[in-house]
Amino acid sequence: MTNEKSQNRWLWYPGDFEIRHGLLQNFQREERGFDWPAYWYMDDCHRNVKFKRYYFLDHPSMFKVTIQGVGYVEINGEKHPSGKWLTCPAGKVKIRIFVGHTSGLPAMFIEGDEIKSDIGWTASNFIEEYPAGWSPLYVDIAKDPNQIYYQKECVHPVTEREVNGGVLFDFGRAVNGCVELMSLDDPIESITLCYGESDVEAMDIEYCYYKQIGMTRKMKARKRAFRYLFIPEVSTGMVQLQVFHEFLSLSKQATFSSDSSLLDQIWSVSEETFKLCSDLFFIDGIKRDRWIWSGDAYQSFMINQYLFFDEEINKRTIFALRGQNEIKQHMNTIVDYSILWLIGIENHYMMTKDREFLRIVYPKMQSLMRYLMEQTNELGFIYGREKDWIFIDWSEMDKEGTLAAEQVLLLKAYHSMITCGDILAETYGEAEIYPTDLYQEKYQVLKQNLFDYFWDEELGAFIDCYESGKRNVTRHANIFAVLFDFANKEQQQSILKNVLLNDTITQITTPYFKFYEQDALCKLGQTEIVYQTILDYWGGMLSHDAVTFWEEYDPTQTGNEKYSMYGDPYGKSLCHAWGASPIYLLGRYFIGLYPTKPGYEEFMIQPNLDSFETLNCTLPIKDGMISLEKTEDKIVITSDRTGGTVKMNGKSYPLLAKQPLVLTSHSIINA
Amino acid sequence: MTNEKSQNRWLWYPGDFEIRHGLLQNFQREERGFDWPAYWYMDDCHRNVKFKRYYFLDHPSMFKVTIQGVGYVEINGEKHPSGKWLTCPAGKVKIRIFVGHTSGLPAMFIEGDEIKSDIGWTASNFIEEYPAGWSPLYVDIAKDPNQIYYQKECVHPVTEREVNGGVLFDFGRAVNGCVELMSLDDPIESITLCYGESDVEAMDIEYCYYKQIGMTRKMKARKRAFRYLFIPEVSTGMVQLQVFHEFLSLSKQATFSSDSSLLDQIWSVSEETFKLCSDLFFIDGIKRDRWIWSGDAYQSFMINQYLFFDEEINKRTIFALRGQNEIKQHMNTIVDYSILWLIGIENHYMMTKDREFLRIVYPKMQSLMRYLMEQTNELGFIYGREKDWIFIDWSEMDKEGTLAAEQVLLLKAYHSMITCGDILAETYGEAEIYPTDLYQEKYQVLKQNLFDYFWDEELGAFIDCYESGKRNVTRHANIFAVLFDFANKEQQQSILKNVLLNDTITQITTPYFKFYEQDALCKLGQTEIVYQTILDYWGGMLSHDAVTFWEEYDPTQTGNEKYSMYGDPYGKSLCHAWGASPIYLLGRYFIGLYPTKPGYEEFMIQPNLDSFETLNCTLPIKDGMISLEKTEDKIVITSDRTGGTVKMNGKSYPLLAKQPLVLTSHSIINA
Repeated sequence: MTNEKSQNRWLWYPGDFEIRHGLLQNFQREERGFDWPAYWYMDDCHRNVKFKRYYFLDHPSMFKVTIQGVGYVEINGEKHPSGKWLTCPAGKVKIRIFVGHTSGLPAMFIEGDEIKSDIGWTASNFIEEYPAGWSPLYVDIAKDPNQIYYQKECVHPVTEREVNGGVLFDFGRAVNGCVELMSLDDPIESITLCYGESDVEAMDIEYCYYKQIGMTRKMKARKRAFRYLFIPEVSTGMVQLQVFHEFLSLSKQATFSSDSSLLDQIWSVSEETFKLCSDLFFIDGIKRDRWIWSGDAYQSFMINQYLFFDEEINKRTIFALRGQNEIKQHMNTIVDYSILWLIGIENHYMMTKDREFLRIVYPKMQSLMRYLMEQTNELGFIYGREKDWIFIDWSEMDKEGTLAAEQVLLLKAYHSMITCGDILAETYGEAEIYPTDLYQEKYQVLKQNLFDYFWDEELGAFIDCYESGKRNVTRHANIFAVLFDFANKEQQQSILKNVLLNDTITQITTPYFKFYEQDALCKLGQTEIVYQTILDYWGGMLSHDAVTFWEEYDPTQTGNEKYSMYGDPYGKSLCHAWGASPIYLLGRYFIGLYPTKPGYEEFMIQPNLDSFETLNCTLPIKDGMISLEKTEDKIVITSDRTGGTVKMNGKSYPLLAKQPLVLTSHSIINA
Repeated sequence: MTNEKSQNRWLWYPGDFEIRHGLLQNFQREERGFDWPAYWYMDDCHRNVKFKRYYFLDHPSMFKVTIQGVGYVEINGEKHPSGKWLTCPAGKVKIRIFVGHTSGLPAMFIEGDEIKSDIGWTASNFIEEYPAGWSPLYVDIAKDPNQIYYQKECVHPVTEREVNGGVLFDFGRAVNGCVELMSLDDPIESITLCYGESDVEAMDIEYCYYKQIGMTRKMKARKRAFRYLFIPEVSTGMVQLQVFHEFLSLSKQATFSSDSSLLDQIWSVSEETFKLCSDLFFIDGIKRDRWIWSGDAYQSFMINQYLFFDEEINKRTIFALRGQNEIKQHMNTIVDYSILWLIGIENHYMMTKDREFLRIVYPKMQSLMRYLMEQTNELGFIYGREKDWIFIDWSEMDKEGTLAAEQVLLLKAYHSMITCGDILAETYGEAEIYPTDLYQEKYQVLKQNLFDYFWDEELGAFIDCYESGKRNVTRHANIFAVLFDFANKEQQQSILKNVLLNDTITQITTPYFKFYEQDALCKLGQTEIVYQTILDYWGGMLSHDAVTFWEEYDPTQTGNEKYSMYGDPYGKSLCHAWGASPIYLLGRYFIGLYPTKPGYEEFMIQPNLDSFETLNCTLPIKDGMISLEKTEDKIVITSDRTGGTVKMNGKSYPLLAKQPLVLTSHSIINA
C-alpha cells in the first residue's frame, strides 16, 4: 500500500526526519543518574520548509492541509490557513505550503481527491529543492512524524526470586522498554528499581547503569534496556510490575534451521540481537551508547541485507549519520567512519538499486569526499586533521604517519564515488552534475602509491606506516585490501599466509574488526575456520547463558570481569549489533548469496555447505526470497524471482523463477 | 550589578541565545488566521554545547549546576549529574559541563562560592571554542533563557463606544500584548475580537489583520499589536476585557524639550514608536512582519545611539541577523542588507568600543565578506547571484548591470573590515588572525573603478549603472557616497546641487531611504530643510491622530487609503521603527553630538540650533550623559564625562567633566 505513489503520506524536507530523530536518538544515552548526549557536533532538521507542486485540474478540487508547526497554504500566490478545507480552481494551479517548526520537524499532510500529499511534491529549504522526503511509517494523518510509534509487547519475568534482601526478576530475554509500578504492598511508599543486562549488574545497587529511586505506585520509568530487575528491601509478591517491550516491526525475514542445534541457536540469538539494535536507526547496542555509529552501522547494513532486507532502516541511518550539507567534523569524529559511510552507500545501492535515494544523497557524498580530499597530501594519502580520530580499531598500530588502512578505505571510497556518480550520470543524463574524472584520477594515483609505499614485498603484506621505518604489520589494512579486492590473487594468498593465518601478527581483539577478519577469511576460502570460530566464539557466549550477543567476548574471562569493558565493571554492552555477524557470514559465504548486479537484478548463489549435514533456510533478496534446502543427498534451491545463478563445484546453473534447482553430487536437475 | 564579572549568570554558546530567539521572533508573524514564518533560511542555536574552565582551588569547594536540557558535569574527567551539590577537590581542577537540548537553547547556571557561572568560562560547539555567551537579562537562576520575561503594564481603553452594531475600544496608544476576556453578559457565549492599528481596520470585521473568533470567558488571546479593539454584536458594558501591554525595559534615555510643542510631540511619538519596535531585537514594526530586517536594524542602531544607548539590543540584533557560521543566503535574502550588517558593526564599535564583542563577531564578518567577494567581477563590482535580491530601495532604478549603490556600500564594508580587523590585531596582537591586506587592496581597486565607471563628470553625479548606457541618475548611490565620505568636497556639492536639491531626479518614496536622504542633507549642512521636513512629514502624521509613526506617509492620502500598502488595505504598519528617525537627526545634526574616537573616548558636540528658540535636552553617550540647554541668550552644555569638544562658529572648546560650558553669541564661559 505504502509503495503506491498515490497514497497520502506525511512529507518533509528529505533527510530532515532522519536528522531530527537521529539527534533525539543520540541524546538518549543515560548513565548512573545523568544524561549523556553525544559528544560531537549534532545537526538538527531545518526550521522552515516550502513545499511546491503544480496541478492541472479539469474542475475545482477541495483539499485540506495539516501541518506540524506553523505556516500557511498558498494557491496561485494567495495565502490561506492550514487546517481548513480549501477549494482550488480549475486550470493550471501552483500550490505552495510554508511550514515552520521551532522545536521539531516541519511536515505536512494533505487530504483531498486530486490534491494530496502523495509522490510528486518538492520540498525546499529556501536554498535547495528536492523531491519531498517521506517514510512508510508515516502514511497515517494521525501519526505525527515527530513521534515514534513503537509496537508494544507486554513481557513477564520468567523467574522472581528473593536474593540479597530484595527481589530479582529475570525476564529471560533482553527487554527495551518501560517499567510501570502497578501496585505495592503497604506500608511501603516507594521502591528503588535497579536494572541489569546481567543479574550481577542488577544486584549491584550502587553501580548498576540504570536505577530509578523513589518509584511510587502508577509511576512509569523511562525507556531502558535490561534483562534483570532488582528491587532491594522487598520480598516476593510485594511488588507488581508491568513491563512493555517496545520495538518497530521490520521487513521480511530470513529463516535458518540446520543439523546443528548450536548453530541454530547462534542464528536465533543473532537475530534477536540484531532486531533489538534495529530501532528507528541501527544503534550500536541497546543499553549503553544507543548512539548511531557509522562503523557499526556499516556492519549492520551487511547483516540487514541477509536478515530483514529492510531498505528503510538503511536509508534512515545513512541520512542520520550524515546530517545537513555542511560538514563540521568527521562522522562520530572518526575519519574512517566518514569513509565507511561512503562505501556503505555503494553497498546499499548494490542491494537495492534505489536510484532515487542515490540521487538525493549523492550531493552529500560529493561534499564529504571533498572534505576528505582536503586532508590528503601530495601522494594522495589521507591524514588526520587536528581533533580528528584516526580510529581503524583499538589495536596497537604504528601511527607515526599516514596509515595504510585509511588509504585502503579511501581508495574504496573513490571507487564508490565513481560507481555511484556514473550510475546517476547514466540514469539521469546529467553527467555534468556527476563528474567522476577527478575521483578516477585520485583513485589511480592513490592505488599506485598505496602499493609503492605501503606494500612490503619482503613481508608479503601491507605495513601500517612507511614513515616510521618500522615496517610494522597489523591485520587491518591487509583485511581491507582483501575485502575491497585491491590485492591480486598472489597478494591475497600472501596476505592469507603472512598475516591472517600468521599467529605472530597481533590478533584482532575487537569484535568490530573480527567481523572484517571473518569476512576476509571467508572470502579467501577459509569457511571451515570461520565455521569453527562461529561455534566457539558465539557458542561460548551462549555457554554463559547469553540471550543476545555481546559487544566483546573473551573465553578466558569466566567471572564477573566478563561484564566489564572500558574500565567499567558493567561497561560491556551485552546486546550489540555487530554480535549478530554470523547471519551475514552464513548468508554471504555458506549459503553463498550475493548480488552481482544492483538490486539483485542478477545474483549468485555459491553454497559452501560441507560443514552442514542438513540445512533449511530462506534468505531475502530485492523483491523476493530464495530458499535452500540441503538434505543428505541433495541441495534444492528455489527463488521466487529470475536473475539467479547457482555456482557449485566450478559449474554454473541458471536459477529460474519458482523452479527448484536440485543439485546432487553428480547431477543437476531442474525439478 | 550585572556588569560585575563575578556575578552568576546563565551561560550559553555565544550567539546561540540570539539566534534561537531570532528564530522564534521571525516565526511570530500572524495574518488573517494563519502564521507566516519568515520565508528565508533560518538558523537555530546549537543542540549540544560543552563548557569548560580551569580552577586552582586552595581548598575543596562546593557547586551546583543547573542546566536547560540534558547533560552532565565532569570534574577532572569524572562524570556527575547536574542538579546536585558536588564537591570539587583542591588543586588544579578541570571542570567541563556538557549540555544538549533538542528543542531549545542549551544553557547552564552554576551556584557556588568559587566555582560559579561568572565570566571566565568557555563554550564549545565541539568545533570552535569561545568565551561563553550571556545576557544581563539572565542573571537570575529562576529565569530560563528559553523564555522572555516581559514587563507587563495593565492598559485601559480611553474610550469605549457603540458603533456598527458593536463596541469599539480605543486605547489611545499602541499596545503590544494579550487581551483576556474577563466577563461576558449572559446569554452571550463567545465574542469575536477584531484588532486594528486604526479604527477603520478594527471595524473591518472581514479584513482586519488579527481576529479572534469564539473567544470565551477567561480566554486569553495571543500577543498582538493594536490600538483599537472592536467587538461586533455587543453593546457597551457587556464585555469586560483585561489588557496587558508587554515590553522590555531599556537603558538610560534621552530627553528633549523645545520651544516647539510640535517638535516635542514628534520627539515623544518617535520615542514611543522606537520603544515599541525595540523588543528583544529591533523589529521592523509591531503589527505586521515583526521580523528582524537588517536594513531596518541598521537604522535602528543609529536611533538607539541617541535615545537609549542600549548596547545589548544592538548586539542581540547583530547576532540574530547573522545566524550561525555557514552562510546559505544573504540576510533576509538581500545583498545590501548583508553589507549593511557589516557596516553596522563598525558603527556599533564606534559607539561602544566593545572589543570583546568585536572579537567574537569578527570571524562571522570575515566569512560574510568572503561570501560577498565571491560575487564580485574582475572590476571588483558586486553583482547578484541567482535568487539574490538586489534591493537598495523600492524606487525605479536602472538595474541592467552592476549597480552603483551596491558598490558604494561594498566599499564602505571593506572600510569596516579594515577598521575592525586592525583594532583586533592591535588589541589582541594576533595580526595573522585579522589580516586586512586583502580588504585594503580590494578597497583601492573598487574605489578607483567606482569613480571610473559610475561617476559621470558631465552629470556631476553617480549613475545607477554604466552597462546599459542609459546614464540614469537616482539619489541612492549619491546619498551613500555622501554618508560614507567617498565624495570629496567638490563632488559633495555637485551631488547636493545636481541630485539632492534637483527636483527632476525622482524623489525618494520610501521612509527607509528618506532616512538616508535626510542624513545626507544634514551632513551637507541642509539642516534648515530637514527641520522643515520633520515638521511637515512627521507633523503631518500627527495631524492624522498618529500615536506612533508610520511605515510611510503620503500627505496627499487623506482617506482610508492612507492605511494601505503593498496592495493591502491595512498593509501599512502604523508603528514602524524607522518612523523614529527624527531622534537620530535631531541628536546627530541639531544637537550635533557624535563620537570621534571609539566609545566616545573623544566626542564632538557641534550644535546647529538656529531653528530653536529654546531647547533642553539630554543625550546618552558611552558611560555618560550630556545635556544641552539653549535659552534666549546662551547655550549651556554639560557632560558627566571627559572627552568632549564643543565646536561652534568655527571654534572648538574642550568640554570638561561636570563643568557646564556656557556659550553666548560672543563669549565662551566655563561655568
